[in-house]
Amino acid sequence: MSGLFITLEGGEGAGKSTQARLLAENLRRLNHEVLLTREPGGSPGAEALRELLLFGAAPLSRRAQALGHMAARADHLDSAILPALERGVVVVCDRFHDSTLAYQGYGLGHGDPALLSFIDGLRRLLARDPDLTLLLDVPLELGRARMQARGGKADRYEAESEAFHHRVAEGFDAIASSASERVVRIDASPEPEVVSKEILSAVMKRLGV
Amino acid sequence: MSGLFITLEGGEGAGKSTQARLLAENLRRLNHEVLLTREPGGSPGAEALRELLLFGAAPLSRRAQALGHMAARADHLDSAILPALERGVVVVCDRFHDSTLAYQGYGLGHGDPALLSFIDGLRRLLARDPDLTLLLDVPLELGRARMQARGGKADRYEAESEAFHHRVAEGFDAIASSASERVVRIDASPEPEVVSKEILSAVMKRLGV
Repeated sequence: MSGLFITLEGGEGAGKSTQARLLAENLRRLNHEVLLTREPGGSPGAEALRELLLFGAAPLSRRAQALGHMAARADHLDSAILPALERGVVVVCDRFHDSTLAYQGYGLGHGDPALLSFIDGLRRLLARDPDLTLLLDVPLELGRARMQARGGKADRYEAESEAFHHRVAEGFDAIASSASERVVRIDASPEPEVVSKEILSAVMKRLGV
Repeated sequence: MSGLFITLEGGEGAGKSTQARLLAENLRRLNHEVLLTREPGGSPGAEALRELLLFGAAPLSRRAQALGHMAARADHLDSAILPALERGVVVVCDRFHDSTLAYQGYGLGHGDPALLSFIDGLRRLLARDPDLTLLLDVPLELGRARMQARGGKADRYEAESEAFHHRVAEGFDAIASSASERVVRIDASPEPEVVSKEILSAVMKRLGV
């Protein structure tokens, strides 16, 4: 029996980590076995790559950044996600491939068609899309206010310009339009408990409950 | 005008680094502008990835290792090799994609067809094959003796078993057969000066001199 592979996507401050945790708790309460994980990272090898990609001093070309994230993703898939799905586990992952397309393809790459098609080629080689993606929508200003309230060290992408984060949001829009059978948009502006109920209901619908 | 992209390939102790250096010297003596470089590495970002790939403590899945080498290669191509070729420079590179196929595909992956096709898919996405590849052939025992004489810390692949290095050699054989228009086999058992003459003559032939 194969499990269900759910990803949470969205820009900075959308509340993905909080919602991923709440979703995992809710599913466990309903007796589902859940693997709660995140990208970049999620396995020891991928965490080492995460450190280099998010905080490394040396610059990397756009294709190299996309490939580095893909390397981390491949290790995460091969050592954690795919084995869990084979055991019938529900996998809840905070960010996945759509973030690579939105951040590296649209944000860094300004939607350059050659880069988008390069990243999509990598996705097809990895050969495992999520079954359901919850795209958390918040206005950029609200997301930024939440990030500032949270504090902590900004990574390579968080530290990018406002124009960059606009392009990322446009990227997520484009993804939601082109993969409407997989991506469900969630209004992530309300309080976490409200958002969490909407997410659980989308997941239950997908589970056929 | 586009330059010429030459790679040197082969197993451990074949003398690739020495021959790459001698070839660069010989070409410069003939008034060619030469970029002498190596993989994994060759640019600051790729060198950071090299360190993680060759000496990192965390394990990486086979697909992740292939992708990590590809990330380093993309940065090396984008920031060093492609700009040099565009300026008409002759690029001499110690190891390139054939090493990924031989070491990760045949050595680690035991020639698993799915992995070989995954690595070949990545090659096609990167879209820049060498114009000429010099495959340096030495018997495994001679290569090993040379490595031992050289000393130094063994990396992740050098430290692998004899069976692994046999599979790598078989991988290079398969590559030479399937890409015979690009790959020239060179007997690398003789003294470096003898090998270097054979290499220069193969390059001159390709340059149409």
